[in-house]
Amino acid sequence: MPTNASPATDADRPSIGEYLLQRLQDYGIADCFGIPGDYILSFYTMLEASPINAIGCTREDCAGFAADAYARVSGMSALCVTYCVGGLSVCNSIAGAYAEKSPVVMITGSPGLRERIHNPLLHHMVRNFRTQYDVFEKLTVAGTELDDPETAFREIDRVLAACQRFKRPVYIEIPRDMVHVRPEVRPLYSSPIPPSDPRALDEAVEEAAQRIEKARQPVLLLGVEIHRFGLQDLAIKLAEQAKIPIAATMLGKGVVEETHPLYMGLYEGGIGRPEITQYVEASDCVVMLGTFMTDINLGIYTAELDIGDCIYATSEQLRIRHHHYRDVKLEDFIKRLVERGIKRQKPQPPAPTEWKPEPFKLQPQDPISIMRLMRRIDEQLDDGTIVIADVGDSLFASTELTTHNRTEFIAPAYYTSMGFAVPAALGAQTARPNARVLAIVGDGAFQMTGMELSTIVRRKQPVIVIVLNNGGYGTERLLHPGEFEFNDVHGWQYERLPEVLNGGTGYLVRTEGEFDAALTAAWNDRSGPSILHVILDEHDKSRALAKLAEMMQKTVVQQ
Amino acid sequence: MPTNASPATDADRPSIGEYLLQRLQDYGIADCFGIPGDYILSFYTMLEASPINAIGCTREDCAGFAADAYARVSGMSALCVTYCVGGLSVCNSIAGAYAEKSPVVMITGSPGLRERIHNPLLHHMVRNFRTQYDVFEKLTVAGTELDDPETAFREIDRVLAACQRFKRPVYIEIPRDMVHVRPEVRPLYSSPIPPSDPRALDEAVEEAAQRIEKARQPVLLLGVEIHRFGLQDLAIKLAEQAKIPIAATMLGKGVVEETHPLYMGLYEGGIGRPEITQYVEASDCVVMLGTFMTDINLGIYTAELDIGDCIYATSEQLRIRHHHYRDVKLEDFIKRLVERGIKRQKPQPPAPTEWKPEPFKLQPQDPISIMRLMRRIDEQLDDGTIVIADVGDSLFASTELTTHNRTEFIAPAYYTSMGFAVPAALGAQTARPNARVLAIVGDGAFQMTGMELSTIVRRKQPVIVIVLNNGGYGTERLLHPGEFEFNDVHGWQYERLPEVLNGGTGYLVRTEGEFDAALTAAWNDRSGPSILHVILDEHDKSRALAKLAEMMQKTVVQQ
Repeated sequence: MPTNASPATDADRPSIGEYLLQRLQDYGIADCFGIPGDYILSFYTMLEASPINAIGCTREDCAGFAADAYARVSGMSALCVTYCVGGLSVCNSIAGAYAEKSPVVMITGSPGLRERIHNPLLHHMVRNFRTQYDVFEKLTVAGTELDDPETAFREIDRVLAACQRFKRPVYIEIPRDMVHVRPEVRPLYSSPIPPSDPRALDEAVEEAAQRIEKARQPVLLLGVEIHRFGLQDLAIKLAEQAKIPIAATMLGKGVVEETHPLYMGLYEGGIGRPEITQYVEASDCVVMLGTFMTDINLGIYTAELDIGDCIYATSEQLRIRHHHYRDVKLEDFIKRLVERGIKRQKPQPPAPTEWKPEPFKLQPQDPISIMRLMRRIDEQLDDGTIVIADVGDSLFASTELTTHNRTEFIAPAYYTSMGFAVPAALGAQTARPNARVLAIVGDGAFQMTGMELSTIVRRKQPVIVIVLNNGGYGTERLLHPGEFEFNDVHGWQYERLPEVLNGGTGYLVRTEGEFDAALTAAWNDRSGPSILHVILDEHDKSRALAKLAEMMQKTVVQQ
Repeated sequence: MPTNASPATDADRPSIGEYLLQRLQDYGIADCFGIPGDYILSFYTMLEASPINAIGCTREDCAGFAADAYARVSGMSALCVTYCVGGLSVCNSIAGAYAEKSPVVMITGSPGLRERIHNPLLHHMVRNFRTQYDVFEKLTVAGTELDDPETAFREIDRVLAACQRFKRPVYIEIPRDMVHVRPEVRPLYSSPIPPSDPRALDEAVEEAAQRIEKARQPVLLLGVEIHRFGLQDLAIKLAEQAKIPIAATMLGKGVVEETHPLYMGLYEGGIGRPEITQYVEASDCVVMLGTFMTDINLGIYTAELDIGDCIYATSEQLRIRHHHYRDVKLEDFIKRLVERGIKRQKPQPPAPTEWKPEPFKLQPQDPISIMRLMRRIDEQLDDGTIVIADVGDSLFASTELTTHNRTEFIAPAYYTSMGFAVPAALGAQTARPNARVLAIVGDGAFQMTGMELSTIVRRKQPVIVIVLNNGGYGTERLLHPGEFEFNDVHGWQYERLPEVLNGGTGYLVRTEGEFDAALTAAWNDRSGPSILHVILDEHDKSRALAKLAEMMQKTVVQQ
């Protein structure tokens, strides 16, 4: 047996940059968001020549939000930026992807290893060459610096596998003189995901099944991981077999088609629909699958779930009542529950699944309000729509919408970073070009990132952006009442942005009739983006926000 | 002697929030940039009621750039943002302030200590409650979390002192339930800056003085720290006493009035004016004071300074030839050199201080070029002007301008983060309301942060923004020639932004005549901002950029 395999020829052996691009494609990534810069130019050139589509954005953080949304829609995404000035500009976007489990591969250049030797103060550097790596160690689930040809392929494999497995962002840094290096080793794909512990899995499935079978009023509470891990069909099958009513959390909205006969609606603690809150909280067996127990997700301190009655399974833990099972994967747990089959004997108290909104009748002359606007949008939604809600009442009011397809609703409902929606619309529309993408965003949030509309115009994407203009940070006004100038936002003529951006169509909306006409026209126009500038009363708010504000005021200004 | 002093009454004892606001004012900070958010609302309310002026921006990173420029102009600045979604959005701005030594106090809210106990997943959280602190530990010179009333006052004192001493950003995190807490201890201001080691100082001053006295052709090379530490008068006195010609680095441009008879110009290695490069590199004693030896600062690998001939003094080190002195402060070193007096006997070879630009004659019908545009601006500059250059040819071409006052030129010439100029103009104009602030920015950089013009409109500041539109990332095109789509930037009608922003005046400029007319009109208009959209040829470039690109190409795409 030879101790050394004969070295491969250049033709078989990819360079580090080529290998990375190939592996991204293996994971189904067809587009890459970013901005070039000198430390990443070499890789960017290789990217542009590859089958992956390079999508330039106006700002790096927007590219990060776009990549986040792309990953939520299509399973995994890529982001490519330069060293520090680029990388440190996406901290917040990557942090949001980490918090909400969106698998984004962040690729960044860095100074070449050779040039570091005699030039300790290269431009874009902060404290030392390691600063950016150190920062992203806090914000990603795995990271690597490709500084050694011997290990580069393995490192790429390891980090991409972590991205897929944990559905969280990862960090790959390539010193610019390593992009074209061809390692002597052959690549060897491997995906070292450890299986579930079979005995723990058996015991957990049996215990959970029996608890559900014995329960008087079990409820399935689904979270966002059901979508991230592609477990929608399994989760629905589980509910249908056992005839258990389903609720979703705010971050998990849209995980189940909301017209499904077993679907009740969102569970949002004290701020949600009372009949759902009562039904879930009266349950003697809440089966939480892929749910994050976050404050906003659970209605900000208002949820009253007794953990002693819960089965709580996520990608990170499996807990039944007060004990924990280790090394049981979420997908295995749900799959095995379905395979075992749950046979329930007792009739279950009827669940509030029959809720239907009141019929909508347009009042053309009335000033438009947020609640009426959402009702009008609800009439328009169909299977091909992706609704992206920004933070604040864009999010809270949007929970009133009825989604008709699993992936239709995207929002940063836990991390709640303002300015997500417009760049996310770019990402979602890129991932699914035939969809109808609708971004709903407040004026304050629009001013943060809304100019990414520029890229949407450039790519002629038919995104519809609805700017809800109440002249300020509306949620804050409610959280902390009083006349504070810092809550006011300077007025823009948002509907005139198409003139600046050389494309798209703008609409100014004050009444229900104007909103109806603008939404209809925008819906029928696939030539480019539409921007609807909707003027709302300064004090207008959705039912959910009003309830939330009432409950949060005490916490925000703690004396 | 009592073991416990009697507790102070509430009236004497400030709350933690009040104390912080008082100390910021002690340091001369009159304005604070930022965006409110629920975890900082309580402190923000206190801020709005204080004598400090709260200036809301459209985005947190813009607030960071504004604070950076404010600190460069007036000595220290403050930035106030919410937890994570706010804080992690300023990573890049704070990193730039760190790299270029700009003393910004970053204040951020965080979840209350009490609410952390039972709610481990609060909104805006990334990995754990410490994530944001951990990140900024890498990007600031000192930081604290005010989680203990016993130490809060001391911690505030320590961190603010570090900001002033090291001229670098610091981080202060206040859990929202600590803002109104009144510690039982009395505040005790203290500024524990250790003095220079007197014997090392004596020896260093004597050695340096003798070296300068013996030198055939000494040169003073001044860097940005001369401005940060307020040492301009001392440095000029030193040069005048000893009759030594002065050069400045790019980052130090404007440290000395450029019309001073001893001033030669910028030293930029191989990309600068050859007569200056030759004179400096032929020197047998380069006295570098407060200079960063960075790549761009020194002309990207082209500087040929023999360290064996240098005296190199900064806030971080003092090196003469190849040996180091510890614990000698930059200000003490310069002050003592002046006090000792330098008596030079030999006549010095004449320095190229008599350089004058060719007289400028307008060619009204000619298309405007970057070099001619800079010459026209040069005619307009006066003592009250602050020029802010963004990255790329905005920076390189601006080095041709003649500044007439020490603080007139601001640019991120080392960290080189695109998008600095417009928000920095907001900061500089706020720090010096009577100045004439001129921001020069490329189209790619403008698209990153230019909408901060909104706040400039809102505050009716007479900032003049010159957008140099060559339809792409011009520096990158030169660094890596070829037709790459990723270097193209989507076209905007920048001159029409005043219509969207409800204020300001826009100008479209294609010829020298149009530029002249627009600049004149803008200069005479102090009612609000002016934006000059200057259309340049795609391949136009300054002399410095052309030289730089030629030298850098080899490094950027390393095969």
